[in-house]
Amino acid sequence: MTMNKTVRLARRPHGEVQREDFAIAEEALSDPAEGQFRVRAEYVSLDPAMRGWMNEGKSYVPPVGIGEVMRGFVSGTVDASRHAKFKEGDTVSGLLGVQSHAITDGQGIAKADTSLAPLQTWVGGLGMPGLTAYCGLTYVGEPKEGETVVVSAASGAVGQVVGQIANIYGCRTVGIAGGPEKCAALTDEFGFDAAVDYKKEWLADDLKAACSDGIDVNFENVGGDILDSVLPLMNFRGRIAICGLISAYNATKPVPGPYNFRSILVNRLRVQGFIVFDFLDKYPEAYKQLGTWYKQGKLKFREDVRDGGLDAFPDVLKLLYSGGNFGKLILKV
Amino acid sequence: MTMNKTVRLARRPHGEVQREDFAIAEEALSDPAEGQFRVRAEYVSLDPAMRGWMNEGKSYVPPVGIGEVMRGFVSGTVDASRHAKFKEGDTVSGLLGVQSHAITDGQGIAKADTSLAPLQTWVGGLGMPGLTAYCGLTYVGEPKEGETVVVSAASGAVGQVVGQIANIYGCRTVGIAGGPEKCAALTDEFGFDAAVDYKKEWLADDLKAACSDGIDVNFENVGGDILDSVLPLMNFRGRIAICGLISAYNATKPVPGPYNFRSILVNRLRVQGFIVFDFLDKYPEAYKQLGTWYKQGKLKFREDVRDGGLDAFPDVLKLLYSGGNFGKLILKV
Repeated sequence: MTMNKTVRLARRPHGEVQREDFAIAEEALSDPAEGQFRVRAEYVSLDPAMRGWMNEGKSYVPPVGIGEVMRGFVSGTVDASRHAKFKEGDTVSGLLGVQSHAITDGQGIAKADTSLAPLQTWVGGLGMPGLTAYCGLTYVGEPKEGETVVVSAASGAVGQVVGQIANIYGCRTVGIAGGPEKCAALTDEFGFDAAVDYKKEWLADDLKAACSDGIDVNFENVGGDILDSVLPLMNFRGRIAICGLISAYNATKPVPGPYNFRSILVNRLRVQGFIVFDFLDKYPEAYKQLGTWYKQGKLKFREDVRDGGLDAFPDVLKLLYSGGNFGKLILKV
Repeated sequence: MTMNKTVRLARRPHGEVQREDFAIAEEALSDPAEGQFRVRAEYVSLDPAMRGWMNEGKSYVPPVGIGEVMRGFVSGTVDASRHAKFKEGDTVSGLLGVQSHAITDGQGIAKADTSLAPLQTWVGGLGMPGLTAYCGLTYVGEPKEGETVVVSAASGAVGQVVGQIANIYGCRTVGIAGGPEKCAALTDEFGFDAAVDYKKEWLADDLKAACSDGIDVNFENVGGDILDSVLPLMNFRGRIAICGLISAYNATKPVPGPYNFRSILVNRLRVQGFIVFDFLDKYPEAYKQLGTWYKQGKLKFREDVRDGGLDAFPDVLKLLYSGGNFGKLILKV
């Protein structure tokens, strides 16, 4: 008999995520009730937002409760169904949780057309990252042709898509990433006009040199020193789309905001936070546009698929916060 | 023969403004050339922005040069004219500089109708403060009826107008000010629904108690700890209109941004900087609306008019940064 392997939140992490924050166990497998179906997970998406979901208290979405299956986007195959619209063998994608088998009524679950893209890409470039990049850049950053767009964590899952979409929009694109390998990939693989290495000593100077016309749009994933290097270079009426502040996610004490906060006033910036769930009404348009660009070869996604199954989930998750991954981090179940 | 008394910038201040940062002198009086007129200053507006104008380097507007007459809004009477539209005896208002007599071609100078409001009010409530409050609240804060609007430096020139306009818009208005006297005036004189004293120990708790439905719009004049108390209370999709960051104006070393910066992302805030000069196209509408409300008795302005003439300018200016004034600070020439 097949079991359901589950990854449950055992305790709230203090600082960096530890293996002991999760309880991994084999549990009895349930069958779907009328109106439900069961999905056998094949790929689990690992997202920076997961760290926030593990914290107590108010955040973007309610925290995962202690003892609950860890929240996560998953793609897989329906292996049992008593649902009218999903049948055995269908490939699907959605928020099914970090477990080998999930029972669902189908709410928020999308069919994953593998003739368009492989199953991993449905939790990869076409999943959260693509939607986040498209909606955030288009509707918060509002770049115009010829403007300069700077993306931090540019080699990350979202960042690499942001740069490519900004290119499609006719912008000059500058990516900030850590180390020569990632920076080279930004320009060589993803078509960024320039890449700046934040691990070098003079980020502010290097960024200034790469943005000779200043910065009109900043798609911010990091915060901290990186945002502080961006702020003084922002042009009049520039826009900062705050997608993530990953530099502070593991902080255990208060972290100061950007020292160059005053640039918001001096340059009359608009700084706006968003998450992908804010744009539910834009998803059909976003999927269609992203899918079209993908088929046209205008978008590529670098996906970093890790083996090891669900047992490896805690260790793979930690890569997100150490800069140890490159591209969308996915765990093969 | 009458002389022109001038207040010129002698050096750039380091930290707090000092008397020695200015050179006050009597100079020969010029006559207007063809197309010009001369204004005898009666009231000089003292504005927090002046400290920024004295700094070297990029800011909202170019700095005042060393040796130049200090920039300032002035109302007065035309005492000599070779200009087609302004004649001797006209009362006017505009950016005429901190001096007893100014020669101008009339660009940016408005006639000050003293049947509507006294001459001091043309550099007071109807001047920069009214325009700033109206344009910033209406077009950046975008409050809706029933929302909660929090104003910092609420007893200041701009703040007291912001609260009254928010009231007119049907909002719940909460003002932050220093000391029981100022707080009492906010509720008793200016119709704020609540006032919170930042000089008491528990600003964050007191503010929370005063904003039981959270904060939808923050009209921010101060920054620092006060903005940090506001940020966690902001409601989903709240707006922060950054009008000033007076807490940092005298800083001589880098000042951290708000520790609760992350609220921008968590609550999907829009934080936007503006200055009154951004809304030139809205001035006719703003003057008309403010004037109408003023005549209807819906707006009142507390003006703090100081004597002492131009010699007192440096000392009166310092009151702005020490919290020593209440309401729009004006110097009688």
